[in-house]
Amino acid sequence: MKKEIIGVGLLGLGTVGSGVLQVFNRNGAAIRQKVGSKLEIRRIAVRDSQKDRAVAVSPELLVNNVNHVLDDPQIDIVVEVMGGVEQARLAVRRALENGKYVVTANKDLMAQHGTELLERARAAERNIFYEASVGGGIPLIRPLKHCLAANRIIRLMGIVNGTTNYILTQMTSAGKELEEALAEAQALGFAEADPSSDVEGRDAAYKLAILASLAFSSKINPGDIFVEGISGVKLRDIRYAQELGYAVKLLAIGRDTAEGLVLRVHPALIPLAHPLAAVSNEFNAVFLEGDAVGEVMFYGRGAGSLPTASAVCADIIDAARTIRHEVDNGIVEITFSPRPVVPLPKQFSSFYLRLKAKDQPGVFASLATAFGDARVSLDMIIQKRSDAQTAEIVLVTHEVEEARFAGALEVISALPTIRSINSVLRVI
Amino acid sequence: MKKEIIGVGLLGLGTVGSGVLQVFNRNGAAIRQKVGSKLEIRRIAVRDSQKDRAVAVSPELLVNNVNHVLDDPQIDIVVEVMGGVEQARLAVRRALENGKYVVTANKDLMAQHGTELLERARAAERNIFYEASVGGGIPLIRPLKHCLAANRIIRLMGIVNGTTNYILTQMTSAGKELEEALAEAQALGFAEADPSSDVEGRDAAYKLAILASLAFSSKINPGDIFVEGISGVKLRDIRYAQELGYAVKLLAIGRDTAEGLVLRVHPALIPLAHPLAAVSNEFNAVFLEGDAVGEVMFYGRGAGSLPTASAVCADIIDAARTIRHEVDNGIVEITFSPRPVVPLPKQFSSFYLRLKAKDQPGVFASLATAFGDARVSLDMIIQKRSDAQTAEIVLVTHEVEEARFAGALEVISALPTIRSINSVLRVI
Repeated sequence: MKKEIIGVGLLGLGTVGSGVLQVFNRNGAAIRQKVGSKLEIRRIAVRDSQKDRAVAVSPELLVNNVNHVLDDPQIDIVVEVMGGVEQARLAVRRALENGKYVVTANKDLMAQHGTELLERARAAERNIFYEASVGGGIPLIRPLKHCLAANRIIRLMGIVNGTTNYILTQMTSAGKELEEALAEAQALGFAEADPSSDVEGRDAAYKLAILASLAFSSKINPGDIFVEGISGVKLRDIRYAQELGYAVKLLAIGRDTAEGLVLRVHPALIPLAHPLAAVSNEFNAVFLEGDAVGEVMFYGRGAGSLPTASAVCADIIDAARTIRHEVDNGIVEITFSPRPVVPLPKQFSSFYLRLKAKDQPGVFASLATAFGDARVSLDMIIQKRSDAQTAEIVLVTHEVEEARFAGALEVISALPTIRSINSVLRVI
Repeated sequence: MKKEIIGVGLLGLGTVGSGVLQVFNRNGAAIRQKVGSKLEIRRIAVRDSQKDRAVAVSPELLVNNVNHVLDDPQIDIVVEVMGGVEQARLAVRRALENGKYVVTANKDLMAQHGTELLERARAAERNIFYEASVGGGIPLIRPLKHCLAANRIIRLMGIVNGTTNYILTQMTSAGKELEEALAEAQALGFAEADPSSDVEGRDAAYKLAILASLAFSSKINPGDIFVEGISGVKLRDIRYAQELGYAVKLLAIGRDTAEGLVLRVHPALIPLAHPLAAVSNEFNAVFLEGDAVGEVMFYGRGAGSLPTASAVCADIIDAARTIRHEVDNGIVEITFSPRPVVPLPKQFSSFYLRLKAKDQPGVFASLATAFGDARVSLDMIIQKRSDAQTAEIVLVTHEVEEARFAGALEVISALPTIRSINSVLRVI
């Protein structure tokens, strides 16, 4: 017999949780038709049941203790939208032990403990759905697990942090320096009071860990990802990049190579004709290359109450369909056996380099000789006079091993004719 | 007991069928791991079993009669990649009657008979998967059915025909006229010998019928879609569009309005900053707006052997998972009750208009008066001298009811000062 009413319990009623209620209020009838059963939100665990909420909620749904949700036999699906790691981890474990399906929007949790929790879900013959943990409402997890399931994924490149993309877009279009663009992003709610996790690239690295684990069927340790944030990006570099035909974006990059996985997050120059170059402001996009499908890209809002709730609700619908159709063990999950990661010095990149040199004969020759000796070949060069005594030089190298480039850079910065190395950025 | 080997039968071994075999040869082991069961291609129905094939295939798999696939009790999933409509329709019906799951890449079939066939599938407690029927390898059907299931879709706009997008891109970037760009597309295999279905927009209209039926949960009759192809687009219009800040694209548009569905395919001016404007050459993209998720876009290759096979294989994997997990009735399908369609004269558009007028005092005033009398307001105007006696005028109107604009256009073309109406295009 089909289950006609499926119970849903929420852990948390913040930005995302309120969005979930709004979506159910608005589209509940259509959702019921798509699932076949009625979805009923039965309990919501909150820290403070007296607090004013952005969304109307019957006070009798609210409970103060997560266990009142986790242990309720009338609840089939637990939706974890409370955030944090340790408490959420314990809650998800308990939900699975109690035979519930789990939906979570928790990026930190899935990046750090995804493999363990998915294994527990499999053992419990349940499933964890986590579409909302990366890219807000943009479908990414489901396309990787289903739509592209026949492909070997060769490469992924994503703009997965809206805050830094907003900042870089504003620097580019309005000629602002980073500090000014960041302050504006904070005023508009696109950046948090403490923006360090975004600006330093840690948020993007967690998202990369989740995407790469699915794309490359590997357990990914976020600590293995090379991370460089955008704080070193100057307006001057963005202007030079434009002159050379590039946009500057914070990219999360994963590649499957013969030597192992390449995993890195850093600002990069990307050709203006590349579809990622046109992704502006708070929008996110993930570009994938599969051996059959070729290049595909998914674009949309990577954060926000309703976009994230769109993904959470899609997961709730999937969990509910699984329950209604009595699928005995959900979907066979991909096995996440850890795969080797290529250490940064062994990876290959093209580099953009901006430096100041004495404006005198032979300076460029000494620079070119130093690069030549290190077998780093140059692709593009711009030289401009900075003041009477100083020339500003911008170089773009061909692809070179990171270690080799680092060695060349050391030699160059010690040259007596070089005044300063001002910027080093990677180029796609 | 789980089914350890799932039998697959192919109808057709052309471009897409060969791609499917290639993907299975390449990624079969990984696919097996994802499904849990082994997928075995057991029979392939072809017209000519002696023909040389692009892909190695054991001759004993080939049969000359589709019924040898459709009636084989060892085949669980029938993959229809033979094309055409009537024979394919009969084959899909028979497959369902015989209790098989169906995967099809057949756009014409699904646009014309999708509702009927999906109803038959439901009655047979089976399912038809048709991700490859629109947008080649780009995930579109599954995101609409699953990832965005909690949204009411407000609007969709797609570049869903690679041939016309290639032609328009080449006109724009290489300054070619349509005929030259078309000949080049044919030489490169992006356009067929008879390109009329692409160039006249019929291919895009069929794809819109499929997407709109899912987006708006409605049975769509392709005959209700207003279709205008690109043959009226001149290089001159593309140049003016660029001057005004637009790209010209063939768009498939669907909107859910209070008056009913708006469904149309036509060339349109779209702002250069819009993500669809950057979709170049043979690439496709579909832009959707949902009430929760906001704006999302899916981008990739809309055709080709391996990209299309990527989608077909994803469908085969989904069908196989359904069989392995003994889901009793697949997914509850969306009900396709027909919804009213707004007739073109009642729809609203902005228009781009290029015309030639006598270069004499008062001409522009007569034009402006005619528009004013018809209550059509103007947004942008460019006037250039064409030769000694003639001025070329380009206008962009604000949004106006189609019927009202058509009336104004009739008045204007009868003005004694107007030499010719050269182009009328819609503007997004």
